[in-house]
Formats: sequence, C-alpha cells, structure tokens
Amino acid sequence: MEPEVINLAKQLIQKPSYTPDDAGCQPLLMNRLGGHGFLGEHHRFGEVDNVLIWHGDEPGPALMFLGHTDVVPPGDLAAWTHDPLSAHVEAGVLYGRGVADMKGSVAAMVLAMEKFVGQYPNHRGKVALMLTSDEEGIAHDGVKKFMPLMADKHPFDYCLVGEPSSSKVIGDTVRVGRRGSLHVEIRIKGKQGHVAYPQNAANPVFLAAKAIDEMGGFMWDEGNEDFPPTSFQISNINAGSGVTNIIPGELVITANFRYAPVSSQHSLEQQLQMILDRHQLKHELVWQLSGAPFHCKDENFKEAVAESVFQITGVRPEFNTGGGTSDGRFVAPHGIATMELGPINKTIHQVNECEKISHLVQLENIYLDLIKRLLLK
Amino acid sequence: MEPEVINLAKQLIQKPSYTPDDAGCQPLLMNRLGGHGFLGEHHRFGEVDNVLIWHGDEPGPALMFLGHTDVVPPGDLAAWTHDPLSAHVEAGVLYGRGVADMKGSVAAMVLAMEKFVGQYPNHRGKVALMLTSDEEGIAHDGVKKFMPLMADKHPFDYCLVGEPSSSKVIGDTVRVGRRGSLHVEIRIKGKQGHVAYPQNAANPVFLAAKAIDEMGGFMWDEGNEDFPPTSFQISNINAGSGVTNIIPGELVITANFRYAPVSSQHSLEQQLQMILDRHQLKHELVWQLSGAPFHCKDENFKEAVAESVFQITGVRPEFNTGGGTSDGRFVAPHGIATMELGPINKTIHQVNECEKISHLVQLENIYLDLIKRLLLK
Repeated sequence: MEPEVINLAKQLIQKPSYTPDDAGCQPLLMNRLGGHGFLGEHHRFGEVDNVLIWHGDEPGPALMFLGHTDVVPPGDLAAWTHDPLSAHVEAGVLYGRGVADMKGSVAAMVLAMEKFVGQYPNHRGKVALMLTSDEEGIAHDGVKKFMPLMADKHPFDYCLVGEPSSSKVIGDTVRVGRRGSLHVEIRIKGKQGHVAYPQNAANPVFLAAKAIDEMGGFMWDEGNEDFPPTSFQISNINAGSGVTNIIPGELVITANFRYAPVSSQHSLEQQLQMILDRHQLKHELVWQLSGAPFHCKDENFKEAVAESVFQITGVRPEFNTGGGTSDGRFVAPHGIATMELGPINKTIHQVNECEKISHLVQLENIYLDLIKRLLLK
Repeated sequence: MEPEVINLAKQLIQKPSYTPDDAGCQPLLMNRLGGHGFLGEHHRFGEVDNVLIWHGDEPGPALMFLGHTDVVPPGDLAAWTHDPLSAHVEAGVLYGRGVADMKGSVAAMVLAMEKFVGQYPNHRGKVALMLTSDEEGIAHDGVKKFMPLMADKHPFDYCLVGEPSSSKVIGDTVRVGRRGSLHVEIRIKGKQGHVAYPQNAANPVFLAAKAIDEMGGFMWDEGNEDFPPTSFQISNINAGSGVTNIIPGELVITANFRYAPVSSQHSLEQQLQMILDRHQLKHELVWQLSGAPFHCKDENFKEAVAESVFQITGVRPEFNTGGGTSDGRFVAPHGIATMELGPINKTIHQVNECEKISHLVQLENIYLDLIKRLLLK
C-alpha cells in the first residue's frame, strides 16, 4: 500500500493544471483540509486562483507553507516514457509533470498539517498553506497580489516555500534567500545610413562595443557570505532589419541583473549609467524590477529547519541563495522570515520529471517535525 | 514643343517596369533604333529581359552604353504630387519613377546614337546600347549573365554606364570605378544557459565585444588616389530569442566590406580571420562576393569623357569611385574601360523623383559628343 502522501500527489498530478489553470487542485485541498478543521479564503485574479488555508487562532508562532499548483507544459509528449498526467510509479519512483515542482511538496505539506492538527487540535499559534496557480508564468496575479490581502489578517512569523531546493538528497540544500532580478532594456542611438556612405552614418554596434565589453567584466559588487557577487547578462541584442546594405540606426539590448542585497536597483542603475556615460553613448533605458532580493536572518528559524532535516535524514543542510527567483520574493518583504526546502531539482521542467516516493515521505516528516518544533516549543 | 529626348523619356516612364518587369521598354527601343539601321539581340533569363542593340561592323573603336529599364517601386503613392507613371512636366522639370535612375539617360543615349548614325551612317567601329530589366533587384539574371554571352561576339573597348553620377550639375561627377562589395556572416559561438547560472554558460555577446570594437576601428587598407580606404560595416547583429532569462548560445553578425582594389576578397578574409583568432573566438564565416571592384585606367577614355562634359556644360568633372555598386562591375572584368556618367542623383529611389529637361538635353549632347570623339578621331 502506498503512503497517503503519494496518493495525494497522484491526485494533484492527474489534474492538468498548466499555468495559470488550477484545474481543481485548490478546491481538492481546501475540501480535504476543511475536513480536518481548517478554514480557507480563496481569491481569483484574472485567470489565477489563490487560496490561504489555515488552522489555529491562538496566540503563538505562525508558520505559513507556500506552494503553487500550476506546472509548466510537458514539452515533447513523445519524449515522455509515460503520460506526464498518469502519475506512473515504477521502482519506487513517481513520474509526472509537477511531481518535483511542486505538487509532491504540496502533498507533503498537506499531510504534515493534517497529522499535526490531528495530534494537537488545540495547538497555539497558526499553521497555514498558501497556494497560487501562477508561479511558473508571469506571476502578476498570484502571490504578488494575494499576499498583501492576507498579510494583515494573518500575520505570519515564518514562511517555508516548498520549491525544489534539494540537490542529491532531501535537505542537502536549503535556500535562505534569493538574489534580486532586475531587467533593463538599453537602446543605443546611432545614425542610420547606407553601408556605401559610412561617413554619413554612425554605427551603434561599433559605438557600443567598448561599453558592452566593460559591462561584461564589471564588478558590480563583491557579494557577501551568503550571496555571490551580482551578475549581469545580456539576453538579447538586436540591430538591423535584415537587409545587408544599411547601417542600423539603433542597437537594442535586453539584460538582466541577478543581484545580492548589498546592491540595490538604485546602485545598479547608477553604475550602468556611469558606464554608458563614460563611453558617451546616446541611449534610453527602461528598467523593470522582477523581484527584490530577500535574505533570511532569523537564526531561530534557520536552526529549526536544520534540526528538522537532520532529525529525519541525518543530513546537515547547506544554506545558500542560489537559483532563480521564487514566490518567496513576495512574502519576505512583509517582514516574514522566509526559507525554501523541497524536492530534488534535477528533473524539474524536463521530460520524465520524477521524485522518489521515499523522498516525499521524508519531506512530509521534515515538515511535520518543523511545525512541532516551531509551534510546540 | 518638347525635345525628342523628353518625348522618349516619357514613353519609358509611362511603362510600369518595376524590377524585373521590362514592361515593353526594350521592344520599344529596339523597334525605334531598328528603324535607324541598328541590329539587336535579346535574351530572357527567368523573368529578366536583356538586349544588346548595336550599329557598325567596321574595324575601329567600339563603345557600349549600358543602362537598365527597370525601376524601383514608387513607395508611398499618396506622397507623390503626381502619379509616378504620368511623366508630368512642370516648370521645366520632368517628374516620374525612373526619370533619373535611369530612363532619362537611356533616352539620352538612344537619341545620341540615332543622331550619330544619321550623320555618320558609315562610321568605323561600333556604337551599342546594352539594357537589362534587373539592375535594381538581385541582378542574377541581368548583365551578370548577359555580358558573357555578348563579350566574344562584340568586343568593346569602352563602356559608359548611364547611372546617375551627377551631384549638382550634369557631369560634375564621373565615376571612374566602383568599390567592391563583399558580404560576410559571422557566427560567434558561446554556450547557452540560464541567466541565474552564468557559471554554466558563456555569453557570446561579451566574448565578441572586444573583437567587434577592433573590427570597427581596423584599417583594412589605406585606399589609393582614386579609392577611399576600405570600409567595414555591421548591418545586422542578433542574439537571443526574446526571452529575458536565457544567455544566448550564439551571436550572428552580418557585415559588408566596401573595398578598394588594393585589397582583395582573400586579403580581407585573412584579416578578419586574424581578428577573430586573436580574440580566440569560436566562429563560423560565410562569405558572399556581391561585386568585385573595378577601376578605369584608360587615360584616353577618361580624357574623352572629361572633354565631352566640358564641351557641353563648361564643367570640369571630378573623377571618383564613390557610391554603391552598379552593373559596371559585370562589364569591367571583360577588359573594357568602364566609367559612369548620368543624371543628378539627388531624388533617385525617392518620391517625386525628377530631373530637369535641360539636364537630359545636356546628357544627350554629351553622349553624342563622346561617340564622335571616340569613333571619329
């Protein structure tokens, strides 16, 4: 007989909840937890479903698990050994889209909360689960909008995000923060003309070359003990309309900063501006902050997570801040200590996404141990 | 009453001969010159009409005029003051698509040849007109293919191209050659990756920046007394698929050399290769020669053209090699001294393309004077 966490993970995987479609995942979980005395509040923004499900109104520590029910598309269906919605189990491994990112950890969180409330129905504090159906997409109508609505009614101390942080074994890596992500579009102005008359034109590609070289090697900051130095990458560069005898009038670059909290949007803007000015480039800049950095400095929470991992797995987790952004960026600014601990991330967003059954059971037990550690002690 | 050269120019302008459609221009001219004892040979390649019309089979100097009957599209019709096919005359100016590039000079050449043959029916040598209906397009099926067929049967000493070389007054500028045009596509190889994990990727934009800067300032040669130094321009640069979180795997550049005869395709290839190697760039190159350079060194021909211009206009022409490419590139390699003299180029390819009636009359007289100067003396 399979563990209940696997039964629940399968039910979630079988729902085709491609971003931003929740496909019934949240009602399933709300009904299930409702049967254990949990309350819930649902908000739909545009096509995105968001829900907070909680238990406990007594004073005391408040812990929120954070997850998402949406998954990325399956990609090349023919490349999957089994239908990505079939939740196939083979040799102790559960296959399916979202099993690792992150229906598996959502199931583990639900089971941990159920068991905790079953054992301690009158616990102090609060335990809760927040879910959105748009973490993988543009994420405008997900936690970004939902969290501000909930923050005052439900003041949480701790947030554990179930994103797949683990590398080789469960809990070997726990994220204690994430870098910020800042986009910029840079338009370098030249003067269009015919290649036969370069004296009447100014090629923006040549004008910009030295500045691009400098941007590529620039030290924006040195990072700190938890964060690597800020990195800057050009993701797109375009000039010219395809014809081969015209000197283009403009060079358009889109670039992205992944930045440590020792820098800020303001400091990065100033530094980039300085480089462009030093090379006397006529330019236009459009900035877009995708997510500010966050960094958990709550030693009590960090120690509790580390102890829970060690208790269940015997592993001492490494704290780091690697990887992309997550919805944690929308929670941490509310003054909530935020960390991330979830499945192995090796197969996420790939064909034949999978996770071991034993890993999901470990996660359930770690989450349960953490709730007890934070709410009972 | 309008001069006959204007009547003929109007008849040509009224035919919608947008590249590569001759629209009956060549038959009109062949019939007309046939009535004056000229012979003709027509070849159609694909959609392109080509014709050589000649008079004279005696020994002696052989002069070929070179022109094209095709014109570029009118662009925004609403921006034209008069229908571009109406050949409207106002205040001594003829308006219409192709009047300057180059139905006006074709009409002037035809009138000059008619008058010459009328006055000297038994002249020595040969005078001829070669026309194509694809000079403005890709030009694969025009003079490039036609000239090799005609070159042995009709060995010419001189070729005068009727392209609009003049700047302010007729004959102020005569082209004594054209630079070569050489295209290259440069693919710089990097390694694709996620912007959050730059250590696993290699951004080809940053890798290439120093090399692009060097290319922009590089002295490929110093030119010579008739040619400016070779110029190199990037016309297109592209990397990235539009998404903002991916480091692109490849940077694609298209560039064009306009080169003096002191350089060659081979020497330019070697120099570009050297720059790419110096910066240790993994790359692929695809070369495409659009036109080799040519350079008229026949002092007799140059003097004759200069004298004819001075005789009719009082202007001493400046010899230069500026501007884009022309069909002269397909004639000069046959050992024919090739120069270019035609209308004012200020309005070519623009709306309200126009040329003064007096200018076309001057051109007719210059062409007639040149035929006499070369064939009678």
